Amino acid sequence: MLDRFYIDNIVITALKEDMPLGDITTDNLIDESSISRARFIAKEEGIIAGLDVCERVFEILDENIEFIKKVKDGSNVKYGDVIAEVEGNTRAMLKAERTALNFLQRLSGIATKTNEFCRMVEGLPVKIVDTRKTTPGLRMLEKYAVRVGGGTNHRFSLSDGVLIKDNHIKAAGGIRNAIEKVRNNIPHTIKIEVETETLEQVKEAVEAGADIIMLDNMSIETMREAVKLINHRALVEASGNMDKDRLRSATYHQDVMTTCG
Amino acid sequence: MLDRFYIDNIVITALKEDMPLGDITTDNLIDESSISRARFIAKEEGIIAGLDVCERVFEILDENIEFIKKVKDGSNVKYGDVIAEVEGNTRAMLKAERTALNFLQRLSGIATKTNEFCRMVEGLPVKIVDTRKTTPGLRMLEKYAVRVGGGTNHRFSLSDGVLIKDNHIKAAGGIRNAIEKVRNNIPHTIKIEVETETLEQVKEAVEAGADIIMLDNMSIETMREAVKLINHRALVEASGNMDKDRLRSATYHQDVMTTCG
Amino acid sequence: MLDRFYIDNIVITALKEDMPLGDITTDNLIDESSISRARFIAKEEGIIAGLDVCERVFEILDENIEFIKKVKDGSNVKYGDVIAEVEGNTRAMLKAERTALNFLQRLSGIATKTNEFCRMVEGLPVKIVDTRKTTPGLRMLEKYAVRVGGGTNHRFSLSDGVLIKDNHIKAAGGIRNAIEKVRNNIPHTIKIEVETETLEQVKEAVEAGADIIMLDNMSIETMREAVKLINHRALVEASGNMDKDRLRSATYHQDVMTTCG
Amino acid sequence: MLDRFYIDNIVITALKEDMPLGDITTDNLIDESSISRARFIAKEEGIIAGLDVCERVFEILDENIEFIKKVKDGSNVKYGDVIAEVEGNTRAMLKAERTALNFLQRLSGIATKTNEFCRMVEGLPVKIVDTRKTTPGLRMLEKYAVRVGGGTNHRFSLSDGVLIKDNHIKAAGGIRNAIEKVRNNIPHTIKIEVETETLEQVKEAVEAGADIIMLDNMSIETMREAVKLINHRALVEASGNMDKDRLRSATYHQDVMTTCG
Amino acid sequence: MLDRFYIDNIVITALKEDMPLGDITTDNLIDESSISRARFIAKEEGIIAGLDVCERVFEILDENIEFIKKVKDGSNVKYGDVIAEVEGNTRAMLKAERTALNFLQRLSGIATKTNEFCRMVEGLPVKIVDTRKTTPGLRMLEKYAVRVGGGTNHRFSLSDGVLIKDNHIKAAGGIRNAIEKVRNNIPHTIKIEVETETLEQVKEAVEAGADIIMLDNMSIETMREAVKLINHRALVEASGNMDKDRLRSATYHQDVMTTCG
Amino acid sequence: MLDRFYIDNIVITALKEDMPLGDITTDNLIDESSISRARFIAKEEGIIAGLDVCERVFEILDENIEFIKKVKDGSNVKYGDVIAEVEGNTRAMLKAERTALNFLQRLSGIATKTNEFCRMVEGLPVKIVDTRKTTPGLRMLEKYAVRVGGGTNHRFSLSDGVLIKDNHIKAAGGIRNAIEKVRNNIPHTIKIEVETETLEQVKEAVEAGADIIMLDNMSIETMREAVKLINHRALVEASGNMDKDRLRSATYHQDVMTTCG
Repeated sequence: MLDRFYIDNIVITALKEDMPLGDITTDNLIDESSISRARFIAKEEGIIAGLDVCERVFEILDENIEFIKKVKDGSNVKYGDVIAEVEGNTRAMLKAERTALNFLQRLSGIATKTNEFCRMVEGLPVKIVDTRKTTPGLRMLEKYAVRVGGGTNHRFSLSDGVLIKDNHIKAAGGIRNAIEKVRNNIPHTIKIEVETETLEQVKEAVEAGADIIMLDNMSIETMREAVKLINHRALVEASGNMDKDRLRSATYHQDVMTTCG
Repeated sequence: MLDRFYIDNIVITALKEDMPLGDITTDNLIDESSISRARFIAKEEGIIAGLDVCERVFEILDENIEFIKKVKDGSNVKYGDVIAEVEGNTRAMLKAERTALNFLQRLSGIATKTNEFCRMVEGLPVKIVDTRKTTPGLRMLEKYAVRVGGGTNHRFSLSDGVLIKDNHIKAAGGIRNAIEKVRNNIPHTIKIEVETETLEQVKEAVEAGADIIMLDNMSIETMREAVKLINHRALVEASGNMDKDRLRSATYHQDVMTTCG
Repeated sequence: MLDRFYIDNIVITALKEDMPLGDITTDNLIDESSISRARFIAKEEGIIAGLDVCERVFEILDENIEFIKKVKDGSNVKYGDVIAEVEGNTRAMLKAERTALNFLQRLSGIATKTNEFCRMVEGLPVKIVDTRKTTPGLRMLEKYAVRVGGGTNHRFSLSDGVLIKDNHIKAAGGIRNAIEKVRNNIPHTIKIEVETETLEQVKEAVEAGADIIMLDNMSIETMREAVKLINHRALVEASGNMDKDRLRSATYHQDVMTTCG
Repeated sequence: MLDRFYIDNIVITALKEDMPLGDITTDNLIDESSISRARFIAKEEGIIAGLDVCERVFEILDENIEFIKKVKDGSNVKYGDVIAEVEGNTRAMLKAERTALNFLQRLSGIATKTNEFCRMVEGLPVKIVDTRKTTPGLRMLEKYAVRVGGGTNHRFSLSDGVLIKDNHIKAAGGIRNAIEKVRNNIPHTIKIEVETETLEQVKEAVEAGADIIMLDNMSIETMREAVKLINHRALVEASGNMDKDRLRSATYHQDVMTTCG
Repeated sequence: MLDRFYIDNIVITALKEDMPLGDITTDNLIDESSISRARFIAKEEGIIAGLDVCERVFEILDENIEFIKKVKDGSNVKYGDVIAEVEGNTRAMLKAERTALNFLQRLSGIATKTNEFCRMVEGLPVKIVDTRKTTPGLRMLEKYAVRVGGGTNHRFSLSDGVLIKDNHIKAAGGIRNAIEKVRNNIPHTIKIEVETETLEQVKEAVEAGADIIMLDNMSIETMREAVKLINHRALVEASGNMDKDRLRSATYHQDVMTTCG
Repeated sequence: MLDRFYIDNIVITALKEDMPLGDITTDNLIDESSISRARFIAKEEGIIAGLDVCERVFEILDENIEFIKKVKDGSNVKYGDVIAEVEGNTRAMLKAERTALNFLQRLSGIATKTNEFCRMVEGLPVKIVDTRKTTPGLRMLEKYAVRVGGGTNHRFSLSDGVLIKDNHIKAAGGIRNAIEKVRNNIPHTIKIEVETETLEQVKEAVEAGADIIMLDNMSIETMREAVKLINHRALVEASGNMDKDRLRSATYHQDVMTTCG
């Protein structure tokens, strides 16, 4: 799902950062023609994500390297499972290792964490969605890892989703005005979401035709009231302190999307 | 300590990622000439790092924005402390907010975590040092945050430090050979570090003239033996599972640098 | 509405293309300290778009140049109207001229054309929307010009809008399957659009819960049937040969968005 | 004639613009291993230009795609002619389609338009040449399309051709001074062109040794006088409102290059 | 004559190369608020070139630094002359120093060397011109330095000048064919140069209408014959081993441009 | 030793500079399908460096070109020796030639010059090391050429080596303070070098624990004193006017590293 022209750019940036001027240990000690084989082995349980990125790290350093995936992105591995086998030029392999792992561990960590949350809402008509609280420069990869872990993505950026917050509401003179002003100007392909903190705001938003209503930092009880009030007229999103303790109860009622920062 | 020509590049990448095509909510709801003021307030205790990056996020979006730091990088803030005040074009401020926080929170997190480890070895002639396990694209910022937190940096990349590992040793035919081969070819400004797992290797390395000896994944006891054996003839570095439980005892003997991944 | 960090990049690319190695005529004939004043004057009627880009072309060549807008983006100018006045270093002005005009003329042309179509549907509850048939490298500017001309944007890219076409339908095994599969995996902030060519497909799409139904290359009559059939259960989009002759009649019935390629 | 290292850069920019974060419709509906075949078919008569660029769009998305050109750049196709056949990964093909067409249609349009003008001066010792009024970022491709259509290029940029205009003449104190000052400083491989608006200026320019004299916005009659006056001592270029009505008569006398903006 | 948008790009590349991660000596020893003053003093006689580049190195590191040029590009300085004075942030100044000098010394060296050659042909109707044998990445700056030293530029690149060599002649079937084929396809703003090694080739070239004839590696005598033969019908260029011994005699006859690699 | 992802970037920059818009001579005269063979032949004695870069210039222009190295980097060639053979598309070969030679000649020149110096200290326990006086943009390649010639590298940049100079010493309040302040903050993998001009400074530096002491611009005699004084407690580096006359005598005593700018 990750296009190569996109991955390569990030991988080359990472490699330049990790060896702006070669690997002075490896280049001086390992024979240029030396060939090695190595295996990626899981050290703990988790969901794997980022194997394509890993593969490109190796291939960009040596186009003849062979990277054989033993599992797929999304697989649940256990301690000791072989994730991938690599064979090729030893120098290239030693240079690639850390950068490849930096990608794989970060992305698998995100996928694993996401998956934990997803399993907590299993059976409920609920989705776990991500946020814009991502690492600068890695958003696409991190949002990909969320999907691999079973979550779905919220908007990718400020350019492709509308989220009307308190400042916007004040500036527009109320929720209704804000929604109308936005609806006239944004692509008709995009839904309108309003962030609410009180039941009053929820009411206003649903009546003004908001497509999505975010319940921000509400108590479990208030959220129940809100969902009742909305009554399927809009998608509902629960946000703010959605830790493991609150997650299940917050989403026990139907149709609630949850953002975990 | 972070040069602007370096920061700007990363900030612009982050902004392009977060709004490839503008902020469709803000651009449609907030008046172009609207001015606002905002404050960054600490939500928990910790060490602040990355204020210069934050500042540039705002300035790049609006060169007239005023960003006033209320604390400095390295300050220990408490819940409720004002970290910075910003005043300027409202659109620019709403667009900058998330990206600025993504930098500030990540870097302050690293500084805070580093500081925790540093305080654990307070009074000992020991340093906490970082690794190459950094986020692709953000290494310089993350290494900066380590310094802000009281740690010091290990090598920045494969190009500016020598770390001889088992594969290198095998390829070179022993530790002594490896050290000599490397010493003849690297800049004389760089020290030579050898990764060891047994006391035997430690002995070999120190006798071959290694400048730094890394004790990798050793028990506390073996480390004590190693330090005695090295006897100030090389710098000592403890690495592998350096969690809070092991840290103090691992470094209780002098001269041990510790890598916390 | 166009952020400077975005504009500057495109402007510098354009300047490098137009003078990879300086302006050999101007650099050899015009005195380095010479100052001039010039005016942008409209040669025909139309809607102006792109003044901010123009301004940056001049400013990037000489930060002290003064660029005074006499009208705003979106203004309807007539033959002879002064659009802007520029004063500053003569060399910079001669170098900037052509590049500035290349942007201004292209964007104003798009705004003017869009506006023509918009005026044709005046009074109808209809919007003119754009497509992805844009010039490689200039999409954001061109989509901006559409908005300046009174149109609204369709999706910006393949990443932020769903448009299910015949190949997708076939691959998914029917419209209903396609919609469900997509709905489970895309951000919940994005609507789902289906491209239809027959009334049967329209019926299928609306019943499967499509948010937007595109009527592609249909006759005026078929479109009327389709709109009746949809009956406000989805947004309707008319596409294909939406020339001036067909536009008014195609949209005479309500709620039709029209794409003009 | 277009080197790959040049094309690839532009194509990747275009692809990133059209799918900064993947194609959310295709990635969710089309099987990763699905293979398809497609054909590019001409919808109207014209000259084809840009097939190499098209090919690279597909190849960059999937290096195993097969793109078979059925005609060459410069071919005159009719309605229904097959231009190219593509076979390969379905996802890659759906993602490439619009971007490939955006290049092909724009370049073929330019080639076709250029060719129209060329055919109008057929049999005359006259060339159709282009201008610097090109799309920012695409100049090389557009100038290539002009050549494909039978035209020839004027200077590529301000760096590789001299065109002395009224401001330059004023600054230098007359045409003769301007020509001499320039001739001493530019590469001797470049000709000197002067823009003239009156017969007097033409006389001055030819006597001062201009290599090329541009007749700007002159009436057909004045142009005839000018050509007589120049009498083969310089190349002649007709510019300004060179529409179809004026073109043939403007160039009926020999040696006139014509710029069509 | 060097536009800032062009310089800045090269300067930032150079700075990133010289401090990918800061200046660890200066950042740790010099106070952030320390201010210093320094002077650039000539260590030997020569022509200065590149002051604008120098200035930008300092300004990019600290926008408040003051860089005062005491001489201009093209000035002939003697041992001990003050070239420039700089005042500002000490850290920035220490970081800028080496990079600024790397530019200034290289460009001044080229200007000085060029000037030496120019003085050798003083009084003769002859120009010293450069070649494409430039440092990858610095061509524009180096060609600028040639101009500063009193030389003029040959073509900037393969894209803006025609030089027909033996391989081209063979492929085209003779000099005449080559010239005609090229003339029909290149911009009419560009002259056609032919490289010749024998008097026979010179004759062929001049009769075929070459604009410039390069005499490559000929003896002084043969060159004299060639110039007589050409008899002002084309510009003459002498190339190959144009060292100081040969230069004056090679150009003693008029109209000879000389390339010094 | 040069990774391809690093080389390619520099090569593409160089090619864009040398043909921003194609090679108008070759593209118009050489048949697209023409195949040629060529040989690189040494014109004088020297050490070859940069063959991998050469190869990539050709390959990037035509992936099917065959570049066969007849010698390796580091080989000592004589007049007439064949360095490499190339076979492939004629257009690509003519376009690549100058750029490939620009790299090969510059790098081989550096390797040859370095080698000359190395041979002068043959048999002595001395190394020739380089400086930061490199061409902007080419540092890694030039440092590579130094290694090929038998030299070793000094620090790559301000980020990976410490060199305490007079300004630093003043700011820190003496050599001892400077060394201690730096040692606490830099990576423990990096040695500390101090630049000295008098025996007094040498004494101070060695006693303060400097790892490397640079003797800057000292007379041969003073250097001898200094080496005696240091007495193996630090590495010694001789710098400043290390021309051929001074080199041998300067390094006749042991342990002296020499910097040749």
